[in-house]
Amino acid sequence: MHDVYEPENPPYRREIPIYKASDRIGKPYVQVDPKKVVGIVEVNLPNEPVIFKELDDVTRRIGENVANFLLGDIKRGIIPATGLPIQSGIGNVANAVLKALETSTEMPALDLYSEVLQDTVIDLMELGRVKSGSTCSLSLSQEGLQRVYNNLDFFRDKLVLRPSEISNSPEVIRRLGVIAINTAIEVDLYGCVNSSHIGGTRLMNGIGGSGDFARNAYISIFTCPSTLKDGKISAIVPMVAHADHSEHDVRIVVTEYGVADLRGKGPDDRAKTLIENCAHPDYRNLLWDYLKLGKKAHISHNVAAALALHTTFEREGDMRLTDFNKFI
Amino acid sequence: MHDVYEPENPPYRREIPIYKASDRIGKPYVQVDPKKVVGIVEVNLPNEPVIFKELDDVTRRIGENVANFLLGDIKRGIIPATGLPIQSGIGNVANAVLKALETSTEMPALDLYSEVLQDTVIDLMELGRVKSGSTCSLSLSQEGLQRVYNNLDFFRDKLVLRPSEISNSPEVIRRLGVIAINTAIEVDLYGCVNSSHIGGTRLMNGIGGSGDFARNAYISIFTCPSTLKDGKISAIVPMVAHADHSEHDVRIVVTEYGVADLRGKGPDDRAKTLIENCAHPDYRNLLWDYLKLGKKAHISHNVAAALALHTTFEREGDMRLTDFNKFI
Repeated sequence: MHDVYEPENPPYRREIPIYKASDRIGKPYVQVDPKKVVGIVEVNLPNEPVIFKELDDVTRRIGENVANFLLGDIKRGIIPATGLPIQSGIGNVANAVLKALETSTEMPALDLYSEVLQDTVIDLMELGRVKSGSTCSLSLSQEGLQRVYNNLDFFRDKLVLRPSEISNSPEVIRRLGVIAINTAIEVDLYGCVNSSHIGGTRLMNGIGGSGDFARNAYISIFTCPSTLKDGKISAIVPMVAHADHSEHDVRIVVTEYGVADLRGKGPDDRAKTLIENCAHPDYRNLLWDYLKLGKKAHISHNVAAALALHTTFEREGDMRLTDFNKFI
Repeated sequence: MHDVYEPENPPYRREIPIYKASDRIGKPYVQVDPKKVVGIVEVNLPNEPVIFKELDDVTRRIGENVANFLLGDIKRGIIPATGLPIQSGIGNVANAVLKALETSTEMPALDLYSEVLQDTVIDLMELGRVKSGSTCSLSLSQEGLQRVYNNLDFFRDKLVLRPSEISNSPEVIRRLGVIAINTAIEVDLYGCVNSSHIGGTRLMNGIGGSGDFARNAYISIFTCPSTLKDGKISAIVPMVAHADHSEHDVRIVVTEYGVADLRGKGPDDRAKTLIENCAHPDYRNLLWDYLKLGKKAHISHNVAAALALHTTFEREGDMRLTDFNKFI
């Protein structure tokens, strides 16, 4: 299933010749000089199993919202009727998004051009909903991996395992018109995304290839539940405590409440649609109140209160208790 | 001088066939259907003149620091001895950087693959220090423009004017191994850059193509003076008030005090090198003090005090007056 293509050091003298997500352009093995091999250690330890939660109402609604958004863009001719390759981040929300594609019979069967593929992809390939999957990593449960091994003839020409320099290549992502779907920890009122550091300090995960995909995608989508910790944390905040993806790389934000389409919108309209379409109702008034504190300028912010929700959570354990008067 | 190449809508069926910064791949004119032309308005109004400040000590030192950094990477073999194409932002600092290349005789003559070219490029072409310049916009003074018009035979094969979709193409930027040099308003202790909104609210300029270049470049450099407004504003801050380029897209930061090479460094080391090599001495203790307030976590931040310098500047007109005790 591997396709190993190694570009030269820059400047490259030629293009990376991938024109379809499933194109194979290299060797099915890594070429090494046998003189450099001093020994081989055989290992039969399985990968650590990936634990999946069952879909709940929140993740299911996020998935449906993404699928409906994509169908809308297909109907409006923004996405061709045959679809465009999908990149999907990992985790339960990402799985829910792909599940939603399965049940949406209006959605064309898709190619994936991704960094990591999870179990859902195996399901969708067996159902004929995913035609091919390009990736640099299969992050499968033991059961999922066994299904692939048991049916290698079926999966061999559908899965392409590439080096990350190719699976995440800006050139290929832009050429194929990839639709990037990644998960956010929090999103600020202007579309800036934190996808790695909880509260700006504690690393939840790296950003993987999401930087390459979000910047170079045809459409860049970020998804997250509107709240965490029983509503004590809002994912829509005045300012993110850590910025992984700037407003310039975020086009669509999706929570269980709906879709904020930020394309072509100025700062005020971005804030409005994020509050009305994506924020949890418990937080909408707080976010509107924050905007009233802002300077009248291109972007409305009040630097004294921009991180008030985060500070309140650290002090009192619940962002809903934020009192802006304590900050300004 | 124009080279107009229009890719299809994604998915593109072929590569953008640029393999050297100076390659011409399209037509020297824009093709339009004559039936759609209802009239032609001739205009002889000149462009608004571009005002240049003379180089001062600060901008000159920033330019020298960038040139020395690049020479160091050439000597270490990270950049090939023949150089790689340079993208340069606009403004006085960007001009100073290009001026420094002129005086550095060890630097190979370079190609530019940029979004905007300024007067300095005209000087450097006449001196033989710049071999070619690819751009989507010539932002020249009237005098600079006249020099091009007066010597068109010389400049015609050295300047290539492209559509922005090509001048800023992620595919071409990555393939050519472009070295991106852009200007920052402020940089935070972990390498996140604000290049558009002063104090997080007032728009100074758009980001232009810097997002495409910073993400996809071989090396991404940001430059700025260490202070503004007679030292009342530090360009190195605990957290930026607006994030245009995340830590993932910023490799090298340069001020008049030195170079912070963030490549391969974790958060603590990034903060240390930014304080010691780039911050103005008046601010170094304040920035060390901020770090002591941070949580022990992957990134050290204190959300209550992260924007204390900005808030103090708004309240008291000078970031040096920051008293963290008022915030935590």
